Amino acid sequence: MSDFSDELRPAEPQAPTILAAERSRSNIGVEQLSQHLLSRGGFLERQSKILRVIENRPIFSKKNQLNLARPDRYQLSLARSKELRRLAVQHGWNQDDYRVAQYLVGEVSPYAIHNSMFITSIREQCNPEQMKHWLPLAENWEIIGAYSQTELGHGSNVRGIETTATWNNETKDFTIHSPTLTAAKWWNGSLGRTANHAIVIAQLLLPENGKLRSYGPHQFIVQIRDMKTNRPFDGIVIGDIGTKFGYSFMDNGYMLFKNFKVPHAALLSKYTGVSLDGKYIQPKNQAIVYGSMTFIRASIIMDSRLVLARACTVAVRYLSIRRQFADRDVGGPELSVLDYPTVQVRILPLLAATYALHYTGEAMFKLYWDTRADIEQKGDLSRLAELHAASSGLKACCTLLVADGSETCRRALGGHGFGGGSGLIPLVTDHLDKPTVEGDSWMISQQTAAYLIKRMTAAVSGKCSEPIDTQFATYLRTKQQQQSRHYDIYNNEADILAAFQDRVSHLAHKAYESRIVAKKSWTELMIDLHRLAIAHSESILIENFYNAAFGNQAPSPSIDTSTRAVMQDLFRLFALTTIDAKSTEFVLSGALDTEKLTILTTRVQQLMKAIRPHAVRLVDAWAIPDYLLDSALGKEDGDVYNALWKKAHLENPLNLEVFNPDFRSEEIVMGEGEQRARERMERLALGVEGHEQREGGKAKL
Amino acid sequence: MSDFSDELRPAEPQAPTILAAERSRSNIGVEQLSQHLLSRGGFLERQSKILRVIENRPIFSKKNQLNLARPDRYQLSLARSKELRRLAVQHGWNQDDYRVAQYLVGEVSPYAIHNSMFITSIREQCNPEQMKHWLPLAENWEIIGAYSQTELGHGSNVRGIETTATWNNETKDFTIHSPTLTAAKWWNGSLGRTANHAIVIAQLLLPENGKLRSYGPHQFIVQIRDMKTNRPFDGIVIGDIGTKFGYSFMDNGYMLFKNFKVPHAALLSKYTGVSLDGKYIQPKNQAIVYGSMTFIRASIIMDSRLVLARACTVAVRYLSIRRQFADRDVGGPELSVLDYPTVQVRILPLLAATYALHYTGEAMFKLYWDTRADIEQKGDLSRLAELHAASSGLKACCTLLVADGSETCRRALGGHGFGGGSGLIPLVTDHLDKPTVEGDSWMISQQTAAYLIKRMTAAVSGKCSEPIDTQFATYLRTKQQQQSRHYDIYNNEADILAAFQDRVSHLAHKAYESRIVAKKSWTELMIDLHRLAIAHSESILIENFYNAAFGNQAPSPSIDTSTRAVMQDLFRLFALTTIDAKSTEFVLSGALDTEKLTILTTRVQQLMKAIRPHAVRLVDAWAIPDYLLDSALGKEDGDVYNALWKKAHLENPLNLEVFNPDFRSEEIVMGEGEQRARERMERLALGVEGHEQREGGKAKL
Repeated sequence: MSDFSDELRPAEPQAPTILAAERSRSNIGVEQLSQHLLSRGGFLERQSKILRVIENRPIFSKKNQLNLARPDRYQLSLARSKELRRLAVQHGWNQDDYRVAQYLVGEVSPYAIHNSMFITSIREQCNPEQMKHWLPLAENWEIIGAYSQTELGHGSNVRGIETTATWNNETKDFTIHSPTLTAAKWWNGSLGRTANHAIVIAQLLLPENGKLRSYGPHQFIVQIRDMKTNRPFDGIVIGDIGTKFGYSFMDNGYMLFKNFKVPHAALLSKYTGVSLDGKYIQPKNQAIVYGSMTFIRASIIMDSRLVLARACTVAVRYLSIRRQFADRDVGGPELSVLDYPTVQVRILPLLAATYALHYTGEAMFKLYWDTRADIEQKGDLSRLAELHAASSGLKACCTLLVADGSETCRRALGGHGFGGGSGLIPLVTDHLDKPTVEGDSWMISQQTAAYLIKRMTAAVSGKCSEPIDTQFATYLRTKQQQQSRHYDIYNNEADILAAFQDRVSHLAHKAYESRIVAKKSWTELMIDLHRLAIAHSESILIENFYNAAFGNQAPSPSIDTSTRAVMQDLFRLFALTTIDAKSTEFVLSGALDTEKLTILTTRVQQLMKAIRPHAVRLVDAWAIPDYLLDSALGKEDGDVYNALWKKAHLENPLNLEVFNPDFRSEEIVMGEGEQRARERMERLALGVEGHEQREGGKAKL
Repeated sequence: MSDFSDELRPAEPQAPTILAAERSRSNIGVEQLSQHLLSRGGFLERQSKILRVIENRPIFSKKNQLNLARPDRYQLSLARSKELRRLAVQHGWNQDDYRVAQYLVGEVSPYAIHNSMFITSIREQCNPEQMKHWLPLAENWEIIGAYSQTELGHGSNVRGIETTATWNNETKDFTIHSPTLTAAKWWNGSLGRTANHAIVIAQLLLPENGKLRSYGPHQFIVQIRDMKTNRPFDGIVIGDIGTKFGYSFMDNGYMLFKNFKVPHAALLSKYTGVSLDGKYIQPKNQAIVYGSMTFIRASIIMDSRLVLARACTVAVRYLSIRRQFADRDVGGPELSVLDYPTVQVRILPLLAATYALHYTGEAMFKLYWDTRADIEQKGDLSRLAELHAASSGLKACCTLLVADGSETCRRALGGHGFGGGSGLIPLVTDHLDKPTVEGDSWMISQQTAAYLIKRMTAAVSGKCSEPIDTQFATYLRTKQQQQSRHYDIYNNEADILAAFQDRVSHLAHKAYESRIVAKKSWTELMIDLHRLAIAHSESILIENFYNAAFGNQAPSPSIDTSTRAVMQDLFRLFALTTIDAKSTEFVLSGALDTEKLTILTTRVQQLMKAIRPHAVRLVDAWAIPDYLLDSALGKEDGDVYNALWKKAHLENPLNLEVFNPDFRSEEIVMGEGEQRARERMERLALGVEGHEQREGGKAKL
């Protein structure tokens, strides 16, 4: 609609001009740096290719999605996911193409669990016969599967799940049953409305000597809905669990069984099984499965760097553009908000963290593939424990960093950060589950600590075998010789790394003394153990970043010398701000003396000043397309205010209606009358109940 | 709908039994403690009275609200707010009753700004004639007003707003105009769809010597919409700004003016004005207005304690009930999750913080009323600066504490914390704006620091006049005499308070040296100044909590000795965990030596162990009704799993439809056909644009 706002422009200076000037202040080669960060597997070319296909198709438009009712939000994501699969067929996309398409759409598809956990379970847990039957059906999406493990009453403690699968020797089949309400499967993605099959995790019960004996949780593949009607079979109750903090596009589901029969072949039997006469077949070595969980955790780190990079892209671009207040001492025009140290200190360390996450993500992938090769080619499992410990701790540390960091970026944007135009609403809400899923971050950190205590025990007894053992042995030697271990963190980057490693060694030794020597209870030690795991993870982040920024090997793909110099400042900033947040641990470990800390903030401010001119190019290098960003504040061209205006004035459905503000009338939409308004409002408030009243029927659950 | 799930119960032990057992482990008198915390102004009786009226009326049902499309969410809150006003008339509710009703409904009404800022402006800024005209209209809701200050381009820096109001000497009126797009009013609550009037803040321009001279921002009362049609007048463009992180119930609006004329009487003229011949009338002392901003900030602290109490209520009840994993060393049944120190350390300090916030909120109200009485009765403005500094810093400190704390509670709930049944989704999202609104928390902290530097300067020159000056003078004397100031924080609570005060004095002295002696730039010092303000605010929280827990005066209303003992442990826990988070500042200030910190975690764990049995009763005392909590996890009776089940299985509208998961078909709802699905999905994706296409017309903006 045309009105006088069409003629108005934002006040000078124009935002795109500011952003262009910001870019001209730095000589970082953005394209080169993008290649350095993102060229693996041809990611950048793939991203461009896919973007061209999807970004202008109407159903992939993101402009209205925050306005939608939750049921509609699911429907739209279902429609998009189906369209993506059709496009994949049409354009001959491979798995990587498809994954990038999903990344750009920016939501987790109702088919996501089918594509990951369901198909992975078939690949990794099926015997050859099962594989031959199920894999083509799943890969061709002839069937759609969910992964049903977590229950209403049990999440992290998988051994505690209540669903049972009882072998019937007469009928040669299993009965799947939910003995209680807390046995209800819960949270299972794609299960709520989409899937017609599921991998169901249930306690395997075999009759032995007239009693049932439990063999613990096992995987069963079960058809749960009719292929024609998509309604659940008798003996199964399924549904979607309802609204969530984010993830409104996904149908996380619940499911109960009442004596539901499945055939003998339903038990996935690559490593284990039940013979037709009801005897349990002991599992073979499942190390490789153990490995695949670490792969998921390594992937979470790699994904998380791009999540934080999105938040930083929005924050750095908008805060460079936004002006507020003149300098208190010298006056003049209003300053760029990113010139305030109180804003820099919230954003620039996070920008540095995106790089830290990157190099550790790369290192974890390498460790994963090396370990896997060792296992497959040499049957060598020796690095598996290290890999598992590192990936657990890093998952905890990195997901917390990214969840908190995204919200820190959002808040630093001031008022506009609270608005839909920030683009950070889905970013924050859809990723706040990450510290919880795939192992709660406060719980799996205990696994890392257990590993470190074990290694310290080995080091104490002089039996070194794993990489970290050497670090521990050195620490013990220095400690014994009462050598000074105060490091020069301001002038020597190798000392920074040493300080982080000493902190880990110190905490590991304390944990060893409490647990192994003084035999304290594990539960009592948990807080210290969590800190130890985070310290270890931060040390890994520092080590990999140090190697990239200061290592002897030239960075590959290469970056020029001046870009590497900025990278070195990012390393220093990440390291010093991490030290600042946990300074007492460094002091108590003997790595730093207190006096050193007095100039920490000064040094951090110097580094931020040095990095500041490069900030826009450093986020540009992450190559996040505007379509993915979906942010008026973070647009690549910087045209912030026109974009915010357009979103509010031309794309807001609430502005389509005029309302009656007179409290004496029950009328809501002007002219609709009181009776109609009253009925509408009660239906909105009561939901399903209101729906039943309106339809005069029962809900079709 | 009836199915086999009706017969199922959660596994033993039943959650209500667990919660009852939790309550029986403590002898805290919940009712007495509730009275102690909440009896001021008859709050508890009022809450019961109002609750009975609203909780069973259909439109106040909360069960469906997270499912709603954003436009519907606004409509429902408009309907509720109108109904609340009708109930207020019908039941003769006063302002306090009405406020409690709004608190229980748990959303901010589209009339909230009318009731607060709009009416307050009329009361405080109108001359008698204006008051006589506008106040009755506003109080009777004959007109509905918004408060239009913030603009697209300017928030915190009010002096930078671009909207102009130019005096026309010929026509004796003002022209309100938006010269740019960034001059658009933005964020203004109630403006988007509801209000027909607004207080508009504009730069007052008077013609002088053939030029326009600016007198800075002034308030104008302006009718913006037609009273019959509720459509904006010509020369005004208004609308709702769109989706937000929370607050979907509120129509935050934008507004542009094109040479819009308002009469001479539109300028609110109690303290200032323009004569009919265009001369500016200099403002009288506005100190009392300055005071009313501090009142809003004090109220934010009082409100925030109940926000955090809600999060803690959910967390403590659910985490007491939830069981996960047996003890690693001794086995046995699964432990209550709240028995894990890693969970306690996230929740119990926040529970302690609700009490800390309470006593400081009370103290701030007292300081506000005392100061106001001083001003009104004696014209004594001497405590105003202290009040302003305290309320600014505390607003910053407490809103950050509560925003982070609520999210910490949510995450500690594991998977169920991410679901709608937690009740924490609106709590977290609707309050994450608090660190930003009414003065960004990273900005207003600078005001507190400026005050403290001023006071330190006075103390250095031996001129003490305000309460904190004595503290500073003592610090300076001790420093000069090089006396040891290491405090015994584990055995002497007065020492805890002294340690917090020393930290403030130390940081204030450093700031004084940098700013006053070394004349460093303000901007360079901002990070240190923010830390100083937070340190001061934490010191105030500690002081008030200390006085309540250890002061010589008996608590009023009274609490029994054993409850006071628990309160003392809460004080210690709050103090020690606050020290833990900023330990280096305490060490560098000389208040603590590093060695003291080695046993900090041990001591914190002892305190948590002592508080743990009382946790449920300590949250019960906040008397948050189930209706307000709207949480399956936090229900007073503890019946968590049945409540979660009911919400998912019986109240989820997504479960009313059956979907077609076959990717080869564009059909979404089973049986609707591809054509209809395609059209529906495009409309959902495109929003307003899709709407226009469907209606064949233009949006009515």
